[in-house]
Amino acid sequence: MKVVKLSPTGKLYVEVCLTPALLPLYNINDSIVVVIDIFRATSSICYGIDNGATAIIPVSEVEECAAYHGTDHLLAAERDGKVVEGFDFGNSPFSYVPEKVAGRTVVLTTTNGTHAIHLSKMAKQIVIGSFFNLTALCDYLISKKHNVLLVCAGWKNKFNLEDTIFAGAVVHQLNGASYKLDDSSIAAEDLYLLAKDDLRGYLKKTSHGERLKLLGIEADIDFCLNVDITTAIPVLEGDRLVKLI
Amino acid sequence: MKVVKLSPTGKLYVEVCLTPALLPLYNINDSIVVVIDIFRATSSICYGIDNGATAIIPVSEVEECAAYHGTDHLLAAERDGKVVEGFDFGNSPFSYVPEKVAGRTVVLTTTNGTHAIHLSKMAKQIVIGSFFNLTALCDYLISKKHNVLLVCAGWKNKFNLEDTIFAGAVVHQLNGASYKLDDSSIAAEDLYLLAKDDLRGYLKKTSHGERLKLLGIEADIDFCLNVDITTAIPVLEGDRLVKLI
Repeated sequence: MKVVKLSPTGKLYVEVCLTPALLPLYNINDSIVVVIDIFRATSSICYGIDNGATAIIPVSEVEECAAYHGTDHLLAAERDGKVVEGFDFGNSPFSYVPEKVAGRTVVLTTTNGTHAIHLSKMAKQIVIGSFFNLTALCDYLISKKHNVLLVCAGWKNKFNLEDTIFAGAVVHQLNGASYKLDDSSIAAEDLYLLAKDDLRGYLKKTSHGERLKLLGIEADIDFCLNVDITTAIPVLEGDRLVKLI
Repeated sequence: MKVVKLSPTGKLYVEVCLTPALLPLYNINDSIVVVIDIFRATSSICYGIDNGATAIIPVSEVEECAAYHGTDHLLAAERDGKVVEGFDFGNSPFSYVPEKVAGRTVVLTTTNGTHAIHLSKMAKQIVIGSFFNLTALCDYLISKKHNVLLVCAGWKNKFNLEDTIFAGAVVHQLNGASYKLDDSSIAAEDLYLLAKDDLRGYLKKTSHGERLKLLGIEADIDFCLNVDITTAIPVLEGDRLVKLI
């Protein structure tokens, strides 16, 4: 059995990778990676899997998604916040309701989220996080007794607040179970504690919130900030995200 | 005269690059870059220039620094928090007192700070920030009416709290002059506001603080958190940091 590498104080690590551009700095093959893209990819993935989607196949490029035309899969492609022309839908959570996705497989490509999943492929395990499954996810992570790396998808490799705040929410729940924090997990937790009593108000001032507002998808943003409305944890098995049993 | 690029709301930008690894994402040639390495390179540079050093020449590699052997320059080299064997000193601020550096040129290489300076070379102007010259620096930046990019040197390309907190202190002073903030400058300012009433207490929990404590340089750390004890602003002219006139 592989021995888990502990911190010098004998604790497990919980670290936050603030953008995918920083992933090469982390020892991901020794960690359970949680991929986070709150507005909106990982929120929609959690919602879709909870709503009975058989699987969601994350692909990096629009062309890879298009290659599934002619199969019975649903094809979802988003770039720069908009549905790509010719696709069934993008990454609005309202497209991942039971009526649409139950019993179906969705092929999904997004600007940031699916990219972060692919960059994390060497991880011991990849699970998907969002406010929707926060507590279920944290309970699972604590039960695994393993190092945890929270990977924020950000916006085109830049830091963003919504993903960091969610990472901080996870750190906060794990911290009670005495993990060793790095500087970015300390910062994420402190920002979460500042924001938690009014997530919507706090995130209104962010760049991405403004960008999505311009796109007319404030309802999506508002919905993505609901906490603990699902319990499913999407996990990557091969090239498919499925419900963790 | 070159027109400064403004944000869509007509404001100047103040952005925070949380680690040098993210520099390629920023439009640095349109910005005044402030390089920040609080523990300890940029604190010591500010202190040395304020204490009468003629110039400080930042070099990336120990070998480049060694190449100045035989000149009348002082040679300073630090790696992993320690003075490199064979050099006059490293980056402890206590080595940059008037008795040692007044009227002298120092050639300096450090693990993070001088690296960040070199990566920023394409900037419109590079100035050096630390808590020592906080208010003088902010007054200068506001007077310039230009976009500002705060570059945190971090630790081996990872995010660190002390550089981010200082960036937040700058954002806080500039924010009053109505700059447009990005997500990382919002986060940095909020973390600074959390930390400002007890900088030493807040930073005790950081990874780098622990690392430096192991190296027995707590006195350096404590000293680097003194606010507004100098007014000199080191500016890069050619390959030399000199006092801005």
